Amino acid sequence: MSTDEYTNLSEIRQHVLDIAKAQRMAEFFATLSDPNRWRILSALATGELRVRDLADVVDMSESAVSHQLRILRTMRLVRYRKDGRNVFYGLKDDHIFNLYRDISEHLDESDDD
Amino acid sequence: MSTDEYTNLSEIRQHVLDIAKAQRMAEFFATLSDPNRWRILSALATGELRVRDLADVVDMSESAVSHQLRILRTMRLVRYRKDGRNVFYGLKDDHIFNLYRDISEHLDESDDD
Repeated sequence: MSTDEYTNLSEIRQHVLDIAKAQRMAEFFATLSDPNRWRILSALATGELRVRDLADVVDMSESAVSHQLRILRTMRLVRYRKDGRNVFYGLKDDHIFNLYRDISEHLDESDDD
Repeated sequence: MSTDEYTNLSEIRQHVLDIAKAQRMAEFFATLSDPNRWRILSALATGELRVRDLADVVDMSESAVSHQLRILRTMRLVRYRKDGRNVFYGLKDDHIFNLYRDISEHLDESDDD
């Protein structure tokens, strides 16, 4: 679609994200600007895990993992459920899977350029 | 899938992003941790635009828009093509559309919680 198809720029302007929404998108992306969080998310993509197992597979301390999990829960990327004395963490929904897939494809394609 | 389905944690460990890839994911997300870049991308999602029109619809100066476009091009999110004396900017591929859609859905669902 070229600019000519729009009668004027005010029509395009209606499609521009408003500042508040753009700010929320930016904050969401800032949360994921951390490699350790991506390692945790990739581990949780295999299934639910307890903090100690998660810490083991990502090579981080349990307290560091717990800290990151709190942030990821605040951004609603991660949820937990209690099962007796155990607490299992998992991904909150499918969007984060899609996100991971899309970005991986984008980064992999960039390699081919 | 629960942890029990894995014979051991070393199997899960194979699915954890390696540090280099996690770092690239984090850098990609850091690039998009800026509300003005999201406003530019949302404008380009309507079609190709010249810098001056882009600056108009997002309410930024042309030099500020050009600066952001350089960064977005470096991350291969944006491309340009010359047509005579005009230079048109557009989104590089579909992944950024998918990304925008997935995150918007995620943020909208968070509102409902």
